[in-house]
Amino acid sequence: MYVGELLKSLDRVSTGVPGLDDLIGGGFIPGRVYLIIGPPGSGKTTFGIQFLVEGAKNDEKGLFISLLEHPKIITQDMLRYNFGLLTHLKSKRILFYDMGESIFGAGRRFTWSEIFENILRIIEAEGVKRVVIDSFTSLEYSVLDPEHKRMALGRFIRKLHERGITCLIVAEMMSSENYTEDYYLTDGVIVLHHFMKNYQMIRALQVLKMHGVAHDSNLKKLRFTEEGIRVYPEAPF
Amino acid sequence: MYVGELLKSLDRVSTGVPGLDDLIGGGFIPGRVYLIIGPPGSGKTTFGIQFLVEGAKNDEKGLFISLLEHPKIITQDMLRYNFGLLTHLKSKRILFYDMGESIFGAGRRFTWSEIFENILRIIEAEGVKRVVIDSFTSLEYSVLDPEHKRMALGRFIRKLHERGITCLIVAEMMSSENYTEDYYLTDGVIVLHHFMKNYQMIRALQVLKMHGVAHDSNLKKLRFTEEGIRVYPEAPF
Amino acid sequence: MYVGELLKSLDRVSTGVPGLDDLIGGGFIPGRVYLIIGPPGSGKTTFGIQFLVEGAKNDEKGLFISLLEHPKIITQDMLRYNFGLLTHLKSKRILFYDMGESIFGAGRRFTWSEIFENILRIIEAEGVKRVVIDSFTSLEYSVLDPEHKRMALGRFIRKLHERGITCLIVAEMMSSENYTEDYYLTDGVIVLHHFMKNYQMIRALQVLKMHGVAHDSNLKKLRFTEEGIRVYPEAPF
Amino acid sequence: MYVGELLKSLDRVSTGVPGLDDLIGGGFIPGRVYLIIGPPGSGKTTFGIQFLVEGAKNDEKGLFISLLEHPKIITQDMLRYNFGLLTHLKSKRILFYDMGESIFGAGRRFTWSEIFENILRIIEAEGVKRVVIDSFTSLEYSVLDPEHKRMALGRFIRKLHERGITCLIVAEMMSSENYTEDYYLTDGVIVLHHFMKNYQMIRALQVLKMHGVAHDSNLKKLRFTEEGIRVYPEAPF
Amino acid sequence: MYVGELLKSLDRVSTGVPGLDDLIGGGFIPGRVYLIIGPPGSGKTTFGIQFLVEGAKNDEKGLFISLLEHPKIITQDMLRYNFGLLTHLKSKRILFYDMGESIFGAGRRFTWSEIFENILRIIEAEGVKRVVIDSFTSLEYSVLDPEHKRMALGRFIRKLHERGITCLIVAEMMSSENYTEDYYLTDGVIVLHHFMKNYQMIRALQVLKMHGVAHDSNLKKLRFTEEGIRVYPEAPF
Amino acid sequence: MYVGELLKSLDRVSTGVPGLDDLIGGGFIPGRVYLIIGPPGSGKTTFGIQFLVEGAKNDEKGLFISLLEHPKIITQDMLRYNFGLLTHLKSKRILFYDMGESIFGAGRRFTWSEIFENILRIIEAEGVKRVVIDSFTSLEYSVLDPEHKRMALGRFIRKLHERGITCLIVAEMMSSENYTEDYYLTDGVIVLHHFMKNYQMIRALQVLKMHGVAHDSNLKKLRFTEEGIRVYPEAPF
Repeated sequence: MYVGELLKSLDRVSTGVPGLDDLIGGGFIPGRVYLIIGPPGSGKTTFGIQFLVEGAKNDEKGLFISLLEHPKIITQDMLRYNFGLLTHLKSKRILFYDMGESIFGAGRRFTWSEIFENILRIIEAEGVKRVVIDSFTSLEYSVLDPEHKRMALGRFIRKLHERGITCLIVAEMMSSENYTEDYYLTDGVIVLHHFMKNYQMIRALQVLKMHGVAHDSNLKKLRFTEEGIRVYPEAPF
Repeated sequence: MYVGELLKSLDRVSTGVPGLDDLIGGGFIPGRVYLIIGPPGSGKTTFGIQFLVEGAKNDEKGLFISLLEHPKIITQDMLRYNFGLLTHLKSKRILFYDMGESIFGAGRRFTWSEIFENILRIIEAEGVKRVVIDSFTSLEYSVLDPEHKRMALGRFIRKLHERGITCLIVAEMMSSENYTEDYYLTDGVIVLHHFMKNYQMIRALQVLKMHGVAHDSNLKKLRFTEEGIRVYPEAPF
Repeated sequence: MYVGELLKSLDRVSTGVPGLDDLIGGGFIPGRVYLIIGPPGSGKTTFGIQFLVEGAKNDEKGLFISLLEHPKIITQDMLRYNFGLLTHLKSKRILFYDMGESIFGAGRRFTWSEIFENILRIIEAEGVKRVVIDSFTSLEYSVLDPEHKRMALGRFIRKLHERGITCLIVAEMMSSENYTEDYYLTDGVIVLHHFMKNYQMIRALQVLKMHGVAHDSNLKKLRFTEEGIRVYPEAPF
Repeated sequence: MYVGELLKSLDRVSTGVPGLDDLIGGGFIPGRVYLIIGPPGSGKTTFGIQFLVEGAKNDEKGLFISLLEHPKIITQDMLRYNFGLLTHLKSKRILFYDMGESIFGAGRRFTWSEIFENILRIIEAEGVKRVVIDSFTSLEYSVLDPEHKRMALGRFIRKLHERGITCLIVAEMMSSENYTEDYYLTDGVIVLHHFMKNYQMIRALQVLKMHGVAHDSNLKKLRFTEEGIRVYPEAPF
Repeated sequence: MYVGELLKSLDRVSTGVPGLDDLIGGGFIPGRVYLIIGPPGSGKTTFGIQFLVEGAKNDEKGLFISLLEHPKIITQDMLRYNFGLLTHLKSKRILFYDMGESIFGAGRRFTWSEIFENILRIIEAEGVKRVVIDSFTSLEYSVLDPEHKRMALGRFIRKLHERGITCLIVAEMMSSENYTEDYYLTDGVIVLHHFMKNYQMIRALQVLKMHGVAHDSNLKKLRFTEEGIRVYPEAPF
Repeated sequence: MYVGELLKSLDRVSTGVPGLDDLIGGGFIPGRVYLIIGPPGSGKTTFGIQFLVEGAKNDEKGLFISLLEHPKIITQDMLRYNFGLLTHLKSKRILFYDMGESIFGAGRRFTWSEIFENILRIIEAEGVKRVVIDSFTSLEYSVLDPEHKRMALGRFIRKLHERGITCLIVAEMMSSENYTEDYYLTDGVIVLHHFMKNYQMIRALQVLKMHGVAHDSNLKKLRFTEEGIRVYPEAPF
């Protein structure tokens, strides 16, 4: 291991979410894989798009792998924000890969290996540096061999590490009771909370886990603004 | 993608529920699919009928796909409200499709694909713009291949998007503990609450998720009035 | 649909439970199916008998389909009440059908279809207008094809609707956590509560759901009197 | 049905538990089946023995069907009480049937039918009027066909009803969350509570259900005395 | 049954745990089987060793059947206590049987019958009067026929009763929610608690069940001392 | 057993976590196996590395068996701490064994026996005295015969005991509700807590179980410092 390689852990790429970089030592570590998890309507897709927009602004090509919604729908929904997604789509600094179409329309199920190899192929062909998979949960329901998840995901993450791809894995929170293996396999976990407290709905972002950096794991206020989601250094209530 | 297509996200169709449009930026986005979920007796069917009546008033043809109750029973039950369902049934601006009859009486089970293709066929033949499926849960219990739900529903939603059909999926709340995949696959989730707090029953509507629009996700007071259900901007207690 | 048919929803038949008719707009809608659910000892069977006695007093023939207990035992137990069950048994305005005997003694299991067709045959042969099935849960444990419950029950309810039979489905509450499909398939749900609050047992009746009528869904005080169960307009504590 | 038969519901046999008869209108109804359920060490077996001793005092022969413990062990354990079990064992007014021995030692499993027919045979051969099955749960684990429980138990209870045998079914409380079918099939349910409240263990008896008689379903103080268990009319705390 | 045999229930053997004998009428009843259950680190093995040391002091031979740990490890761990285990090991008044070695190393699984017969053989060959099985849970995971547990354990307990062997069955508490069958089959249940209350860890001993003797079932303070565990007559907080 | 062998239980090796040795009588007992369990981001891997660094400082060779992350990633992440991992990697006093690579890349699953024998082979070949397996949970998901876990782990632990290898088993906390068998099979359990209390995240270390030594099982404050994790003698709040 060269010193240069080791010092990578000091590099940072901005998350694109105002207020978040400050909470995690300047941004994500490039080449790492992060889990973005939350209940429905908590801002997961918006987070993913902001992450890619941030890259595009710095001329890093980004790939959004969509398993739930058609890229057109996502684009429509993002029009409410001012972060200029359209510009980056036109300049092809952000690419959509409508994986849902190919998977749901294929007439057969794929193995984890096939899916991950497919993703890696696109990443290489397009030379992207940032990837969002939205949603990973959807993948889990589509594969032929769900029992191989941990092994296949472990291998996939290692390959992303090798290639230096920073990747966000978007996951659906089915229950708030248990930790799934995604929490352990990824390099960091950011939870987008949306829950009821005293019959009031609370929105918050929590850096539950973040390898390689000192961080505060408390809930932080999250707001939807015209620039997308934004995090504030204070508690959400 | 043309600008015109993108601007669709600024269009709105009224929900037909007094007080709700104001909570979601003017109404539903046309061509999107929404989940209406709640426990028994929370007003889900009434919501669906109001949605179709609102369309009918604006000359939009609507289709009510009934899996639980016979259309006659629904019509009888709606007589307590003043929103004039009978007029629209006579003018055929609202159609009932008694899918329960065909499914429960068929002597065999159907696949998700068969059922969704059947629905799409009727939608096209009748030229409807608004659809209510009541209840989706009933479908889940009837299909031959429940394990294909996410993939089949994903594909169906995409086809509704393409055709510009605004659709309400009515679902039964089995447990309040977990989020099901319906919450993630649809463009918005409205929860009709009916629960006990300090041994008093509370009725409320909650816009849990609504893509493409800033919205308040807190519980809002819901009442059954002579015009159907109505939402108020204040908390339910 | 004729206006006459639609106006049926304004008709009412008395429930036979003092205090309950006032809570649901005058009584049950004739030809509808209602779920009576509660824990052991909450008064479900007593409710069913009162419902039939009320019909008998108005010369409506009623049928009690017993799956748990022998009719003789039920009759013995009802002697503590003054509502004159014996008179109506003698005049054959109330009939017992000891379905438990035929099902448990048959040496084989039946399908939902066989059982429901059997019930419909008796209903027609005897010309009854009110039916109580006590308990439906017992049926569920006896059938050959439990997985067909929703479809078979949906079909059965529709046939009762067509024939104008008012029917009470008595169900055992196994857990208070979840709603089962019975709650959704029936036209109304009345819960007989019997639970501990601050280590005191509370008895209450709750109209959880009642299609076609405005109603209060709060818990109402329930008492066992010499005339059977009785509901009071106030809270149970 | 003769009036005489109907009036049976007014007869009572003493339970043998001081303080309990007063809570249930004078005692058990002869010929009925009751569930005695509770956690380990709550007094279920003691209750059963007291019930038989009470019968023996009135010259009613009683049968204790033991599935858990050897009769000798039960007899030893009961020596701490003054109710004179030994005398009644000697006079054969109380019989032990060590069913555990025959079931556990048989080298094969039996069906519900075989077991219940066996029990009925002994009842008839010995002319007993009171029966205790301790524990029923143990039976459930031993049978060849657990899925037939409801049907077999339903049939068995009916046969006890016909023969006029008063029977206590002792069951183990595995979880306090749910009601099992035993609660519904039997004519009455008595719960022997033993639980922690504010870190203090509480003992109480609750008449949760008692067909044919007005009763208070609140927790009543229970104590172990030198005469066995005893119930007091007040709350346990 | 001879009077002598019956009077056995008045005999007592000391438990070896200071403070416990007083809570249960002088000690365990000889020839009975007791369940010692608790979470990890609650003192179960220490209890078992103290029980054997107590016997050894009175010249009763004791057998420790170890399924989890090697006897050497247990011996090492017990060196922190002053109760002189080494002396008794040397004098062979306490024997270790490393059943884990024979079971885990056998290359095949055994039936409950084989295992229990094996244990009985050793008991007879060595003439031991006190036995500890640590842990029973480990056995459950090792057997070929887990579904026979209740029947096999029932039979085994009866054989211990016949031979007059006092036996402690040590079990691991997997969840504090439910009672397992071990609680019902044994003659007494002692729970070693170790739980958090107001974020403070509490240690306590509870005599949940104890046949044949009046006892207090409340939590009692437990401490680890240089003489092993010790119980105090007061509450643990 | 020689006295010398027995006295081993008085030996201690430092844990490498400042503040922890004082809580457990000076450190871990050499040759024992400890469970380090916690939710994501609680410091488990850091604990493991500190344990090996401590050994390396005293010239004890240590082995880190990595199943989740590539050694390079772990090394990068540890750069934020000042404990000098790089030096020890270079001097080969700490070895990484990338077991994830061999297991995930093998194209087949292994049995528990194969995996444990493999680990033992490396331990012997390299002459290591301290081992960390991170994470054991990952192993569980990879094996061919998960049902043999208790037996295989029991055997493996015994072999480590014989060889005098001190081993940390790192496990993922899936749910905080239940104890798994790992808690019982190991010689000690240290829980790294990371949980929400009054909506504040709390970090704490708890010595839940520690054989052979008196210890306090209360939560102790844990902090991430520049020297890795550190424990404080006070409560975490």
